[in-house]
Amino acid sequence: MAKRISGKDVAADVKASVAAAVRTLPGQPTLAVVLVGDDPASEVYVRHKVTDTEEVGMRSIKKTLPATATQAEVEALISDLNQDDEVDGILLQLPLPNGLDANQAIECIDPDKDVDGLTEASAGRLVLGKTGLRPCTPTGSVILAKRALGDNLSGKNVVVIGRSILVGKPTALLFLAENCTVTIAHSKTKDLPGLCRTADILVPAVGRPQMVKGDWLKPGAVVIDVGINRIDAPERGEGKTRLVGDADFADCEPVAGHITPVPGGVGPMTRACLLQNTVKAACYRRGWTLPDGV
Amino acid sequence: MAKRISGKDVAADVKASVAAAVRTLPGQPTLAVVLVGDDPASEVYVRHKVTDTEEVGMRSIKKTLPATATQAEVEALISDLNQDDEVDGILLQLPLPNGLDANQAIECIDPDKDVDGLTEASAGRLVLGKTGLRPCTPTGSVILAKRALGDNLSGKNVVVIGRSILVGKPTALLFLAENCTVTIAHSKTKDLPGLCRTADILVPAVGRPQMVKGDWLKPGAVVIDVGINRIDAPERGEGKTRLVGDADFADCEPVAGHITPVPGGVGPMTRACLLQNTVKAACYRRGWTLPDGV
Ligand SMILES: NC(=O)c1ccc[n+]([C@@H]2O[C@H](COP(=O)([O-])OP(=O)(O)OC[C@H]3O[C@@H](n4cnc5c(N)ncnc54)[C@H](OP(=O)(O)O)[C@@H]3O)[C@@H](O)[C@H]2O)c1
Ligand SMILES: NC(=O)c1ccc[n+]([C@@H]2O[C@H](COP(=O)([O-])OP(=O)(O)OC[C@H]3O[C@@H](n4cnc5c(N)ncnc54)[C@H](OP(=O)(O)O)[C@@H]3O)[C@@H](O)[C@H]2O)c1
Repeated sequence: MAKRISGKDVAADVKASVAAAVRTLPGQPTLAVVLVGDDPASEVYVRHKVTDTEEVGMRSIKKTLPATATQAEVEALISDLNQDDEVDGILLQLPLPNGLDANQAIECIDPDKDVDGLTEASAGRLVLGKTGLRPCTPTGSVILAKRALGDNLSGKNVVVIGRSILVGKPTALLFLAENCTVTIAHSKTKDLPGLCRTADILVPAVGRPQMVKGDWLKPGAVVIDVGINRIDAPERGEGKTRLVGDADFADCEPVAGHITPVPGGVGPMTRACLLQNTVKAACYRRGWTLPDGV
Repeated sequence: MAKRISGKDVAADVKASVAAAVRTLPGQPTLAVVLVGDDPASEVYVRHKVTDTEEVGMRSIKKTLPATATQAEVEALISDLNQDDEVDGILLQLPLPNGLDANQAIECIDPDKDVDGLTEASAGRLVLGKTGLRPCTPTGSVILAKRALGDNLSGKNVVVIGRSILVGKPTALLFLAENCTVTIAHSKTKDLPGLCRTADILVPAVGRPQMVKGDWLKPGAVVIDVGINRIDAPERGEGKTRLVGDADFADCEPVAGHITPVPGGVGPMTRACLLQNTVKAACYRRGWTLPDGV
């Protein structure tokens, strides 16, 4: 029976390490969060990020623009934050209201302040193995795999299912940087179950509820389930829904060595890694030594 | 017995397509080649690039700096070429003389003119799937694989051995963009022969002479041999050497479906793809429609 890796617990550990690290820094890192429009879900996410930031002892600045903001206004705000030497990290909450070009806005963020790791330069630094800010969900997935197998992942066979620019590709590149042998699978992959059975670490990042079955796993494999899918849950009452991953948890649990639940797996890690990135951004930019544990 | 894919022939085809494409353009693309110092090998490479460029009907500018040039002088020259609206592509011949920081100089190149595809932004655009300039040797490797299997590589299993920023990683990302299932192997990979036997397309990019043996191949596999290694060749006379790839050609040829020789395989493609990139850079930058066949 697989051990459950609780992303909630690991995220709490990461947050505690960040808080401890912040106390040792010569100054206080600052995260600026930009919210455009009034999408209620986005407002909740932004509130979480602000609270998280302050809980670990960093400063947060919340900047809001109305849903009617123009592309130029969004970019001017980002440009101001780029220029503001007090600001270490800039997070542009996505999605943007219709009519705004998110990619173009993201590209305005100074890569040294790009705590979401979404700019061209950040992606390039990841490929080139240079110091830089890595995307949060992929970073969290690697941390969870290390929690299962220890810090040395060298030589492990990793299969990442999914090749999105937000998750799949950066996840593959991060496991590669950990000296894993990495395979990237996607919708055109042939014999996906057979391929998955070669994995010591399987990372489904697809968005298909409960796609990965127990017989897709090598016995003892580690499953880091990035998928978050809402499905009907009539057993909970009429019209009820629940969240599930891309792995069929009940089916995989008896075969896997370790598995992350959904919810409470990779999800909480994303928020924790944003805090880590804010500390990193501050240290790189200001020439501070990166504290241990970040 | 494998079919040989002649990189020489395919490169000549690419060159002819580029020449045909250039004739249809509303203006003449210009490649600037920067040579610092007087390394004889680099001088030869630069001469080839200048000749190639002119043979396909493009303009070339050769800029030289002495081996004593400072970092600031190299960067100032690149900056001038960035600003020069006549210049579509900038190629900084590597290696630079000792004491100069090649990475830092490369980063000065405007990504829109980065025909070697080596800047952070170019690497990022590749990951993000955005329009951009891709590194030449990896591009050439994909073209050769298509010559073997046709333009549709979707669902093929590709194993790339090597994860360098110049070759391995961009090659993997380019095959992924062709909808292949891609595995990246390296010195920490376990059971490399077994992994290679899963490949429909095997791309050794290692730098170990004749490492890949026939029994590492799935019968019928395509071998795109990027390696270029000089070994002793006493059979040619005392002190003689010859070039070999990372695959043991004689051993692989009976098993493979297609194989590229060394020399005359991937090598010539690199030069041809630089010409393609110069046309692309000109078209993207000037808003010209990209002609067919480039
Ligand atoms: N904090 C978090 O935990 C977090 C963060 C982000 C995302 N997520 C979740 O992660 C999942 C993936 O997100 P995403 O943004 O990467 O999604 P995405 O952009 O839709 O990418 C999905 C990927 O899965 C591949 N795919 C689709 N169907 C497949 C199939 N039948 N077999 C194999 N591969 C298949 C697609 O292949 P093609 O490229 O061939 O189409 C694509 O590469 C979603 O459930 C999302 O909610 C979680
Ligand atoms: N135009 C052309 O045709 C062209 C252009 C460029 C390069 N090349 C040739 O391509 C080859 C590779 O060039 P490069 O610049 O990528 O070299 P590189 O930077 O030295 O990278 C070599 C890669 O091979 C891996 N490797 C080393 N020993 C291995 C082993 N025993 N098993 C599996 N993997 C192993 C290394 O793994 P680690 O990362 O774990 O160390 C590394 O990722 C060279 O022969 C070079 O001359 C040809």
